[in-house]
Amino acid sequence: MEIIVPKILPDIQNRILAIAENHFKDFGFEKTDMRQIATEAEIAIGTIYIHFQNKEELYLQVIERHWRNTLEKIEAISKQEADEKQLLSLILQQLVQDMTDRKSVNSLWMEVGAIHHQKGFDLAENKHFSIKHDQISQTISKILKKIAGNKPGCIQPDVLDQLGNFAFVMVVDVCMLDPVTAASRIDLIADLLITFIEKSGSSQ
Amino acid sequence: MEIIVPKILPDIQNRILAIAENHFKDFGFEKTDMRQIATEAEIAIGTIYIHFQNKEELYLQVIERHWRNTLEKIEAISKQEADEKQLLSLILQQLVQDMTDRKSVNSLWMEVGAIHHQKGFDLAENKHFSIKHDQISQTISKILKKIAGNKPGCIQPDVLDQLGNFAFVMVVDVCMLDPVTAASRIDLIADLLITFIEKSGSSQ
Repeated sequence: MEIIVPKILPDIQNRILAIAENHFKDFGFEKTDMRQIATEAEIAIGTIYIHFQNKEELYLQVIERHWRNTLEKIEAISKQEADEKQLLSLILQQLVQDMTDRKSVNSLWMEVGAIHHQKGFDLAENKHFSIKHDQISQTISKILKKIAGNKPGCIQPDVLDQLGNFAFVMVVDVCMLDPVTAASRIDLIADLLITFIEKSGSSQ
Repeated sequence: MEIIVPKILPDIQNRILAIAENHFKDFGFEKTDMRQIATEAEIAIGTIYIHFQNKEELYLQVIERHWRNTLEKIEAISKQEADEKQLLSLILQQLVQDMTDRKSVNSLWMEVGAIHHQKGFDLAENKHFSIKHDQISQTISKILKKIAGNKPGCIQPDVLDQLGNFAFVMVVDVCMLDPVTAASRIDLIADLLITFIEKSGSSQ
């Protein structure tokens, strides 16, 4: 008697995502073909649609995976034992590195927009995307709060949260404008934030 | 003998754009119907396509018109006779006001992305869009240069150009996060920039 063993595909989603990532990078969103992804993953086209409703969802999941990966890296950096200003620089550097690596996938602003508002493809609410962006900003804010905590005065926590957001969009901005000079612009972002925190700390 | 006078339609493009603006605002990009726009403008559908290649181009022209309008306003502010710091605040306020007014049209990040990189709809190069964003940043930079010019030290002009860009993306950020608190966040953006300029001015 033949026993039919159900195919166990634990990493099938990750496999599809990894292949899709390369396709989006090489061909862009429009020219990426779901059938080619299926062929490369050695699965039936229908199997992709079990895991991802359509190409738009697959694309957003690729983006989501990118940002989750980046978030994990900068959270690891923020837990290192080091001077907070140095950690801030390391986090910004990591963000620039990851964003410039991924720039070719699509416009980063589009990604940020999609993450922020899920408007890119008129998708239903996917709150976890905006949470991801918030988490990156919050990780930066946490370091800024430590820097502010070392000063005699004080800045309101909501201002430091806002500065974390600003840091994030400024990093996106420098990556979009010119990836080559982006690295040197990180120092300016860090200087801008630290100067303000130290000034506000000492004057209040 | 009947003389056929060619229809002169000097403002037809503006009329289409004004109607399209309301449609995009009310129905979003996907559900906006070119035929309904034509009906409302009392023209044939084909006439729209004489002026705008397709819905994507019409949408981008609506955005472009918005930003051109904003640019004109802030350039007028920058030429006023007043304290530069006050002008900076007025410019940022105007940007917030215009951006929050228009927020419902679409995600501002999408607009910025489209303006920045024309990737939104895989359009051919439309360099004038990114020039528009650059011009807004440059108008801010000009004011920052005047503020820096009043200080004894000096900051490199390219740094002040970069700060103009940062100001722009920070304004977009506060408008997207919460339009209600956006106005109060303008002060933070202005403080951040001015503190840095004054500190760099005095320490070099």
